[in-house]
Amino acid sequence: MHVHVNAATSADGKLSSRRREQVKISGVDDFARVDEIRAASDAVLVGVGTVLADDPHLTLDESSLVSARESRGETPHPARVVADSRARTPTDARILDDVATTYVLVSEAAPADRCAALEDAGAVVVAAGEDRVSFPEAFDVLESRGVERVMVEGGGEVIFSLFEDALVDELTLYVGSMIIGGRDAPTLADGDGFVEDFPRLSLQSVERVDDGVLLSYRC
Amino acid sequence: MHVHVNAATSADGKLSSRRREQVKISGVDDFARVDEIRAASDAVLVGVGTVLADDPHLTLDESSLVSARESRGETPHPARVVADSRARTPTDARILDDVATTYVLVSEAAPADRCAALEDAGAVVVAAGEDRVSFPEAFDVLESRGVERVMVEGGGEVIFSLFEDALVDELTLYVGSMIIGGRDAPTLADGDGFVEDFPRLSLQSVERVDDGVLLSYRC
Ligand SMILES: NC(=O)c1ccc[n+]([C@@H]2O[C@H](COP(=O)([O-])OP(=O)(O)OC[C@H]3O[C@@H](n4cnc5c(N)ncnc54)[C@H](OP(=O)(O)O)[C@@H]3O)[C@@H](O)[C@H]2O)c1
Ligand SMILES: NC(=O)c1ccc[n+]([C@@H]2O[C@H](COP(=O)([O-])OP(=O)(O)OC[C@H]3O[C@@H](n4cnc5c(N)ncnc54)[C@H](OP(=O)(O)O)[C@@H]3O)[C@@H](O)[C@H]2O)c1
Repeated sequence: MHVHVNAATSADGKLSSRRREQVKISGVDDFARVDEIRAASDAVLVGVGTVLADDPHLTLDESSLVSARESRGETPHPARVVADSRARTPTDARILDDVATTYVLVSEAAPADRCAALEDAGAVVVAAGEDRVSFPEAFDVLESRGVERVMVEGGGEVIFSLFEDALVDELTLYVGSMIIGGRDAPTLADGDGFVEDFPRLSLQSVERVDDGVLLSYRC
Repeated sequence: MHVHVNAATSADGKLSSRRREQVKISGVDDFARVDEIRAASDAVLVGVGTVLADDPHLTLDESSLVSARESRGETPHPARVVADSRARTPTDARILDDVATTYVLVSEAAPADRCAALEDAGAVVVAAGEDRVSFPEAFDVLESRGVERVMVEGGGEVIFSLFEDALVDELTLYVGSMIIGGRDAPTLADGDGFVEDFPRLSLQSVERVDDGVLLSYRC
């Protein structure tokens, strides 16, 4: 599985404010770039924290990208994937509409009735991990369903876990020219954090985009 | 007062790990650059959190920078300034040696015996603010003592306060090619954080330094 993490942070590394509301960090050029990475992916993954905070749709905005996928014999939109150990995704979440396939990754500890409700709402529920979603296991299942390239759109808890599991191949980071601040605001990589053997990245390119900068790394 | 904030963070915005130990984020070229900004400053400011965590010396490493200052009729090293509302700086802190003047900014609430001990240890104690150091007030005092250019070297609590008080003129940020992670690790700007009217920065230049990137902003 090729894993590409993409995110936009403030100069101080925040994905959002302490209120966890969506903050406009980048601009139109960056949005278009994100849409293109989505279009080149088989699936787009977020954590349930992002679903609860932002209720994203995670489909392509640009119709030419949809037709290009279709002319390649692909589904119009990439699949959507939520990491949601306890199946807390609301059944009316926008990602559960029928525009694209949606996988909800849960753990063995997820309540059966919640999983059933999500399946009724159209999701494909995949159990992987005892108490918490195990990404290595879940990715094996996704791969068996034809997902070869996954784009990760956040948030900081999921991104940290993917680095911890050494699953990230690529990171594109848009650094917006603003300060959000806040010791409790979500950052690009939260979780428990590393205390040694910090994962090293290899900076591939640096490009000015909108009023900020796009940093592209191999991991 | 011209206020220049300089810091090194991981790609995820962290100044250090959750253990708050010093992490090597940048390399020799960035160290040399930091030394030059120090040399061009009248004072270097940190918070007491950084003093307690790192016990920095905050003097110039490069002797040619020292002689250049001296030949301009300046002190060999810039003054050192600690923001320390309750006068918690240890009397054996490295910044209290006699290589340069050291100002300890305290609040009215600082215990008198601690302030006296710091003065005995060679510090110039400046009271500004009731419960917590007021930077606008403290900077007026420093200015009256000839400090026109201050370089701020962290940490995240002090840097946030300076942005909150709209005192920052310039930010240089070295973004190292590594992930530190951790929801409790210090970031470039901590404090309570902004929830609206986020301070906007103006990106002046982008330069690859060591294996990372240096972002220079006007604020
Ligand atoms: N600027 C951007 O690019 C961007 C992008 C996305 C999100 N955001 C912002 O980020 C914030 C949300 O981020 P977040 O960090 O709170 O949430 P998140 O990473 O989206 O989701 C975290 C949740 O995922 C679940 N999860 C399941 N398996 C996991 C695993 N193995 N490792 C880690 N988490 C796992 C956990 O809940 P369970 O244990 O209950 O499953 C965890 O609480 C929002 O404020 C949103 O606006 C910004
Ligand atoms: N990578 C880098 O460039 C870099 C640079 C510096 C530090 N660091 C790291 O940063 C960490 C320390 O950062 P930190 O955020 O904990 O500490 P900090 O910002 O250095 O110091 C915070 C303390 O300053 C005092 N303070 C006084 N007046 C203040 C005001 N008006 N606003 C805010 N604080 C005020 C407060 O304590 P009182 O109320 O008791 O005074 C506060 O707890 C360490 O892990 C260190 O290694 C990294």
